[in-house]
Amino acid sequence: MIAAGSNQALDRLRPYILKTPLVESTVLGSKIGCRVRLKCEHRQITGSFKVRGALNKILNLPRQRLDEGVIVASTGNHGAAVAYACRLIGGKCTVVVPEDVSSTKAEAVEKLGAQIHRFGSDGSDAERFAREWAVSDNLEYISPYNDVDVIVGQSTLATEMLEEVDQDCTVYVAVGGGGLISGMSTVLKAAFPGIRIVGCSPENHPVMDASVKAGYIVDLPYRPTLSDGTAGGLEHDTITLPLCTAGVDSWVRVSEPEIRDALRLLAGQERMIVEGAAAVAVAAMQKHELPPTMSRVAILCGANIDRDRLKRILDDV
Amino acid sequence: MIAAGSNQALDRLRPYILKTPLVESTVLGSKIGCRVRLKCEHRQITGSFKVRGALNKILNLPRQRLDEGVIVASTGNHGAAVAYACRLIGGKCTVVVPEDVSSTKAEAVEKLGAQIHRFGSDGSDAERFAREWAVSDNLEYISPYNDVDVIVGQSTLATEMLEEVDQDCTVYVAVGGGGLISGMSTVLKAAFPGIRIVGCSPENHPVMDASVKAGYIVDLPYRPTLSDGTAGGLEHDTITLPLCTAGVDSWVRVSEPEIRDALRLLAGQERMIVEGAAAVAVAAMQKHELPPTMSRVAILCGANIDRDRLKRILDDV
Repeated sequence: MIAAGSNQALDRLRPYILKTPLVESTVLGSKIGCRVRLKCEHRQITGSFKVRGALNKILNLPRQRLDEGVIVASTGNHGAAVAYACRLIGGKCTVVVPEDVSSTKAEAVEKLGAQIHRFGSDGSDAERFAREWAVSDNLEYISPYNDVDVIVGQSTLATEMLEEVDQDCTVYVAVGGGGLISGMSTVLKAAFPGIRIVGCSPENHPVMDASVKAGYIVDLPYRPTLSDGTAGGLEHDTITLPLCTAGVDSWVRVSEPEIRDALRLLAGQERMIVEGAAAVAVAAMQKHELPPTMSRVAILCGANIDRDRLKRILDDV
Repeated sequence: MIAAGSNQALDRLRPYILKTPLVESTVLGSKIGCRVRLKCEHRQITGSFKVRGALNKILNLPRQRLDEGVIVASTGNHGAAVAYACRLIGGKCTVVVPEDVSSTKAEAVEKLGAQIHRFGSDGSDAERFAREWAVSDNLEYISPYNDVDVIVGQSTLATEMLEEVDQDCTVYVAVGGGGLISGMSTVLKAAFPGIRIVGCSPENHPVMDASVKAGYIVDLPYRPTLSDGTAGGLEHDTITLPLCTAGVDSWVRVSEPEIRDALRLLAGQERMIVEGAAAVAVAAMQKHELPPTMSRVAILCGANIDRDRLKRILDDV
């Protein structure tokens, strides 16, 4: 159903999103010893793939639900993506954020026309509050990954690559909640059953990797990572757990220095500024051993990195 | 002859170079109010379009000439491109540089297998010495722009865009010696006589712009510019003067702050790190008035910006 829905979803999303280029990386190719390409999704509208899922969800909601309002709990790419989708399609969007959220992040979401509601001391407080609010007021809560429409939306990233990849390809995707990799693996494997999908996580927060290994959603303690886009706990009933269990062939974890090196290589040699999660996929691809004849694709999933963090990383470029 | 030769040249170059993507810029598009695309030639091998001209020249030289050796005078993109082409195709390459050249630049060229020869106090000294050496030893001197094979090589950048542009397009190209814009305008106008080509220069060194207006090559005093890729005086017999006179529809000059702003916008919003000359084309596109229905393409001609300069520019991203 995801693979079948993806083509249709891409047709609906096409007027609103970019087809991002899949470019050769001669630098990574000669380091690794095989053909390497990078899917430049960091150049997507809103600077992240999340707009695909958000738009697909919003386009599938009845007009009345949009007028009543949707609720999300995210100051990151998902929040911005849903706010952007509501502004584009029409709809009321509330973003619940922790009380100490930075004014820059809150302003970015407000600029997209969403209402900010401050609650609690961290992301889980805000998420719990948002869900309860949605239930009590009968509003639509939009999960960043535990939602079929969102996953189908993310899967369009794979659909638009279908003519450029084949059976002998290995695809590296950073995994947080698993929405992107669930959608992508379904679409890619429907077209090329032999294609390999590698889930990439920071060592500091490999929550889906650990959950797939455990067979149930595990809770991991918070440890800081450059890959803020993949951080955060998982909903215990998330449909991405079975999808990842079925669709991901191997898992690779990368350290913070490995993520930092990948960010530097991308800026210094590929001349691309990406966020930590995108660098997780590149770092994992660099350390993953495979026969050299296999071609590889790393998904650069987003561009939204803190200015200060970017500057510190560029200090050594 | 250039337009006819360009297809053949592209076929010969194809195994050695990348087809660089032409991507939408929604940021610049909404600022300017029309469709804007960026030709990502800064991601070309060696980080610059110069490799197209260098490879086409080297591929057209007889084996004996390559074994005798070729001479260039450039520590920049042209020097690196010819050194790279000689390493790839086989051939002896000497790069003449001023005595005070930075060790980083000299090492970069040496790493590509070229010999460094130090002479004189600036680029014109080095160029004069290189030409005299080439004449006295009967070696091939390769000009960065005053050479039909080099121009045909650069023109392949336009040939690979032909299916993506049309009659109603305006194309912005930074101009130093004029090799790139001469080749591109010839190819684009042969395909689309109504297409508009805009030559873009820094106010601090608009030497081809001023020469076309004068009707002969003028010498301008040296003034520093972020666009080091377009700096330097012109050979007085350069064939790019008549080609630019015939093929360039308008000229736009940009100030150093305008170049800096364009570098910042590209890094901060498009997430692309480019060199000053590439930013000249984007800055010129932003200030050039045109009917809003015209679509625009800016050529991001190179990525090779000094690390320190890049850091200063990113300080305000």
